[in-house]
Amino acid sequence: MNIISGGVCAAKGFQANGIHCGIRHNKTKRDLALIWSEVPAACAGVYTANLVKGAPIAVTKAHIADGRAQAVICNSGNANTCNADGIEVAEKMCELLANEMSMKASDVVVASTGVIGQRLNVEPIAKGIPALVKGLGDHSDFAAEAIMTTDLKKKEIAVSFEIDGVECKIGGIAKGSGMIHPDLATMLVFIITDCAVSAQMLNKALKADVQNTFNMVSVDGDTSTNDTVMVLANGMAGNKEIVSEGPAFDAFMQALNTVTVYLCRCIAGDGEGATKLLECRVSGARSEKDAKAVAKSVICSSLTKAAMFGADANWGRVLCAIGYSGAAVDVEKVEVKFHSAKGDVLVCENGAGVDFSEEKAKEVLLEPAIDIVIDLHDGEGAATAWGCDLTYDYVKINGDYRT
Amino acid sequence: MNIISGGVCAAKGFQANGIHCGIRHNKTKRDLALIWSEVPAACAGVYTANLVKGAPIAVTKAHIADGRAQAVICNSGNANTCNADGIEVAEKMCELLANEMSMKASDVVVASTGVIGQRLNVEPIAKGIPALVKGLGDHSDFAAEAIMTTDLKKKEIAVSFEIDGVECKIGGIAKGSGMIHPDLATMLVFIITDCAVSAQMLNKALKADVQNTFNMVSVDGDTSTNDTVMVLANGMAGNKEIVSEGPAFDAFMQALNTVTVYLCRCIAGDGEGATKLLECRVSGARSEKDAKAVAKSVICSSLTKAAMFGADANWGRVLCAIGYSGAAVDVEKVEVKFHSAKGDVLVCENGAGVDFSEEKAKEVLLEPAIDIVIDLHDGEGAATAWGCDLTYDYVKINGDYRT
Repeated sequence: MNIISGGVCAAKGFQANGIHCGIRHNKTKRDLALIWSEVPAACAGVYTANLVKGAPIAVTKAHIADGRAQAVICNSGNANTCNADGIEVAEKMCELLANEMSMKASDVVVASTGVIGQRLNVEPIAKGIPALVKGLGDHSDFAAEAIMTTDLKKKEIAVSFEIDGVECKIGGIAKGSGMIHPDLATMLVFIITDCAVSAQMLNKALKADVQNTFNMVSVDGDTSTNDTVMVLANGMAGNKEIVSEGPAFDAFMQALNTVTVYLCRCIAGDGEGATKLLECRVSGARSEKDAKAVAKSVICSSLTKAAMFGADANWGRVLCAIGYSGAAVDVEKVEVKFHSAKGDVLVCENGAGVDFSEEKAKEVLLEPAIDIVIDLHDGEGAATAWGCDLTYDYVKINGDYRT
Repeated sequence: MNIISGGVCAAKGFQANGIHCGIRHNKTKRDLALIWSEVPAACAGVYTANLVKGAPIAVTKAHIADGRAQAVICNSGNANTCNADGIEVAEKMCELLANEMSMKASDVVVASTGVIGQRLNVEPIAKGIPALVKGLGDHSDFAAEAIMTTDLKKKEIAVSFEIDGVECKIGGIAKGSGMIHPDLATMLVFIITDCAVSAQMLNKALKADVQNTFNMVSVDGDTSTNDTVMVLANGMAGNKEIVSEGPAFDAFMQALNTVTVYLCRCIAGDGEGATKLLECRVSGARSEKDAKAVAKSVICSSLTKAAMFGADANWGRVLCAIGYSGAAVDVEKVEVKFHSAKGDVLVCENGAGVDFSEEKAKEVLLEPAIDIVIDLHDGEGAATAWGCDLTYDYVKINGDYRT
């Protein structure tokens, strides 16, 4: 498996674009994205668990009920959620694109991200679509930019892998960065591949993967109304279609997981206001479920997040978060280490503090990527969760988001 | 029922004190509190649900297993939690006080609050106890100060009420202000009353009350390891002892609830870094459980909290938090209003936004106490939760708490 460039245009038959159509006032910020496959693709999606769901999710669900799609249209700047005419607007977006590209509206996936509860004016989208389509090409970066809201960094990746001697490619783009919490952690993730895989197996792969990836990311504990992870597989790599489990499916799962873990780390590390990526790795739990509960609890603890911002080795807060996680834990066996590029610091053993160098701890915690490594010494369950520190800028960004 | 002064010294037979004994470096900050009853009192307590529990909690539980106590000793500056010798130290604190006051160590309630995982040196406490005892008197305010950590305001209240023509009094002190989350929301609350009530009925009253009070407060989603709510009833008011349900018990419950709701509001409003008290009142839920889930979810939403800090009427975040609360909600019936001393603003009806004056909303939300009023229009269930806004100062306080 190799990391390659190209994002959502890396695989055969996929093109993308992103333009400023006018949903946002800032004319230098692209706000409308398109991803397109030359041929209809197998398609699978997972969505937010929030009862309040964006209108685009209802439309997308209906469109991909047949397991196929050919294009993704996505705007930023407005979530098209909690609006009386939301469904109509989302359907209109699909129709406009389908008309321009001479395809079926039911083969279009639609997504929106931004402010909730303000009507989305379809006019700028209608006016923008001809240019959006005309500019289609090797422009994954334009699409990645167009789906960003408060994200500071574009999030894209692609990898190549082999199935039965045939080279396949898989690539994705994502946007975070606030209102990020299991389940589903991600706001928007679009993954494309030229690997031939049936809609059923694509669905199986995606559902299994998100349990250990996007559902283990938290920026702020708020589960967005519009979270969507979508995978399109157009089969143009020419491998024998994957229709059941086996070595080919495993190879695909591994490539998918490389893409999703990378995007998870991007989303967490670019959390609103974040200065640090936090990764909590739990082992020795009585079950995988317990390990997940502990990892998520630590990554979600505001106090732990604030301590990490301050590079303060206040491990008592980690213990506290373990204790209220709901997991079955023998507190007297717990071991906690902080790890970064600068090394390891053991801070707690057998549930009690150990002497450690505050100077060394500071050095470790001043790094931009911190691992909180927990061994519960009580079983074989393991899990990893991703998050970020809690900073002044998180408050600043969210104290007055709409203005 | 009347609000009176005196805090935990308001009722007959209770005295208190608070001194600086040297656990904290800052000599102007009291760090050791004592509450004492002339006669042994009926006693009931509730504690944190965190699996990681402070050593003082284990000792206190054992001491009040017989339903009686005569004194409360509490230090701030160190939580005596996750320490190998925590139990010994907590027991030593009780013994030292018992020896000084010629009472049984098993009649002493002990509590600690502050940093987790640093050994608590008992020396300054041993040295301080004689002065602590000698200074006992009408000093509820000294005790209230001595239990504070990052609290900015002392939290105390007392009320008088009548049972069968006999005047009784009940008073309490509390400390917040970080690591506050259901269940149990409070860090430390000590309530005293001269009302005669059996230990069993006191326990019943307290357990029922906290479900609607301290378990409905959240500052930051972190459940502390040391949360304790303790009530002592010494019977010196002279009423006929309450040993069963009935009008006298109801009157006591009402007085207790007045004290606890007041202290909940104090704790939430003085949350770490808070500039605003948030009260979320939910009605029209299918059940009380659903109402509680919604109220807690809204009060815990980082995005809602940050919006309130910015006086931004971003009600979409309230809808979002309702949606992921886990409660059974018909999104299309939801109504949301913001309320403060400056009036009401209706922002959402039937699950969709309504036109409102941003100017008026700003005026309402700039007040120091904001009510988020939600009617789910789907039943009779109601609940209230208390929280605070998320501010720069929360991050500052917790970014480097130990130094």
